[in-house]
Amino acid sequence: MKDLFATCLKYQNNQLLILDQRRLPHEQHWHQCESDDDLVTLIQSLAIRGAPAIGIAASTWIGHLADSGASNDELIKSIHKLRVARPTAVNLMNYLDQMLEAIEQGADNIAISIMAEALFDEDVALCKLMANHGAALVPDKAKILTHCNTGGLATVGMGTAIGVIKAAHEQKKQIHVWVDETRPLLQGGRLTAWDMQQAGIPYQIICDNMAAMLMGKNEVDMILVGADRIAINGDFANKIGTYSLAVLAKHHGVPFYVVAPHTTVDKLCADGDAIPIEQRAADEVRGVSGNFGNCQWTPTDAPVFNPAFDVTPAYLVTGWILDKGVFNQQEIDAGALVR
Amino acid sequence: MKDLFATCLKYQNNQLLILDQRRLPHEQHWHQCESDDDLVTLIQSLAIRGAPAIGIAASTWIGHLADSGASNDELIKSIHKLRVARPTAVNLMNYLDQMLEAIEQGADNIAISIMAEALFDEDVALCKLMANHGAALVPDKAKILTHCNTGGLATVGMGTAIGVIKAAHEQKKQIHVWVDETRPLLQGGRLTAWDMQQAGIPYQIICDNMAAMLMGKNEVDMILVGADRIAINGDFANKIGTYSLAVLAKHHGVPFYVVAPHTTVDKLCADGDAIPIEQRAADEVRGVSGNFGNCQWTPTDAPVFNPAFDVTPAYLVTGWILDKGVFNQQEIDAGALVR
Repeated sequence: MKDLFATCLKYQNNQLLILDQRRLPHEQHWHQCESDDDLVTLIQSLAIRGAPAIGIAASTWIGHLADSGASNDELIKSIHKLRVARPTAVNLMNYLDQMLEAIEQGADNIAISIMAEALFDEDVALCKLMANHGAALVPDKAKILTHCNTGGLATVGMGTAIGVIKAAHEQKKQIHVWVDETRPLLQGGRLTAWDMQQAGIPYQIICDNMAAMLMGKNEVDMILVGADRIAINGDFANKIGTYSLAVLAKHHGVPFYVVAPHTTVDKLCADGDAIPIEQRAADEVRGVSGNFGNCQWTPTDAPVFNPAFDVTPAYLVTGWILDKGVFNQQEIDAGALVR
Repeated sequence: MKDLFATCLKYQNNQLLILDQRRLPHEQHWHQCESDDDLVTLIQSLAIRGAPAIGIAASTWIGHLADSGASNDELIKSIHKLRVARPTAVNLMNYLDQMLEAIEQGADNIAISIMAEALFDEDVALCKLMANHGAALVPDKAKILTHCNTGGLATVGMGTAIGVIKAAHEQKKQIHVWVDETRPLLQGGRLTAWDMQQAGIPYQIICDNMAAMLMGKNEVDMILVGADRIAINGDFANKIGTYSLAVLAKHHGVPFYVVAPHTTVDKLCADGDAIPIEQRAADEVRGVSGNFGNCQWTPTDAPVFNPAFDVTPAYLVTGWILDKGVFNQQEIDAGALVR
């Protein structure tokens, strides 16, 4: 397989290397993936996260196994193991199902590894398309609020929502970014802040509960978020807190856009009710944990509710920024996501 | 001065002792207040917090100084120093202004220390009144969402919003409490969780950004919050994130109540725009810090926006639960807060 390079992973000298995002922004550590189980653990522990990124990590690994001479049975077993690593983000299932179908239709190992390369290259290209479509919507001097992390750490390209932000910045629009810290796992405060610093984009971190106040003071011109799964009616799952922003945006008349490639659409999913929502460990809410330190501030064993995602219904969305263009509610209703 | 006992402070053997809330829930440490500056530091660092509690801590301290034979000039100087310890919560100013006025009108030291005792006793009584008025509004089996911390740590009585929750629980209503963790200083995750455990009230902690999802799933029957300052038109300042909840409640048709004593009303304040909002240190958002540990997860020196409070406009409020009763928008418009 050819070498592949992204911010969050690389394939080099026949090895899959994953940038351990749990250690960012303080440390850049590359972990060499050794087995299916190793990759599942990396995905479940959020060493790599972001719907396209975990999908591409998995498809690249399957490409690597094919390249290393694995049998069809071995490939299929690995696919089944990886496919269920996390339940909500659909790119993982979409990419692996494509590979499974190809194997079942007789694709040989060379074809599978070429497919892995193509999926990687496709994600890079889709990001560029979304970024260009989205940047056209960003006014000069826009104050943009974003949630979680959706750049080069969440895709193998320039990102989804952050891709749009980066493209607008490259077009010399004088943007300012409000970065939701995104509790509990702080992907905003740790990763998006790091992305903004790397790109030299002016930003300020806020606690998630401050977004409404900023909207009330006309300090937010638009909201851009990514998605983990989009149903064909336009409802979508994304990091917990996204639905909150969508409701607040509607109340304040702030344009609210979701940015995602067609590979995040689940064509078997009629609406948001059908999207499975991952519940995660209580300790994530009881404190914080990472290479920056470990704290628990709540009473020991305090009961917790910890959904990793929420679902934003289509009626709250101003526009869907996809690789194919920007779509509105009518176009979604007319089947834009099924084609 | 007589001995006074509350959860958050006590006056005993002529000493003012403050329970250091920074160390809760892991440790109960009583700090003996030694000077004006000492108390100012305790207030500014949130060792004691909550609008009524910081007001009563200050008035009790002034009572103590009077009891210890301070001159009028010394008392006035202390009042001026304490009055500006924090800018948003108005009880501090209200209580100290009452004392200042009394001194200017010739009150002697005995009168001032009796006044301090009376302010303490009044807060206890006001809490009971609010709790009873509010509990009548709580349906059996209600799922109540609350923000920040408003019980015996925020008042010297049973609390404001948490006072209502406790009264409903004592009335054997089978309530469940959703506790917003309340970033950045985690008063919910640390203190309200502790309050709920102490009282044996079923609860779950959530990150602030999860409240909307719960409302969307009909898992929130009512929202109860406290206030740091209420303008006479009913607008009120409270812990950052309160405005967000109020907007979300309006969207979802969830009743949203503010619970506060008349001592939190600022009769000189026409509306919310006139309420000063304290901005706090960036490090509070860059990480967490306490006896539970210290972490910074953002990039070093990451730029931050950190308002301690926000203002909720009256039109988002279902009812004002005051010591005098429960009032609606029409009654507020008719001057319920000025009388």
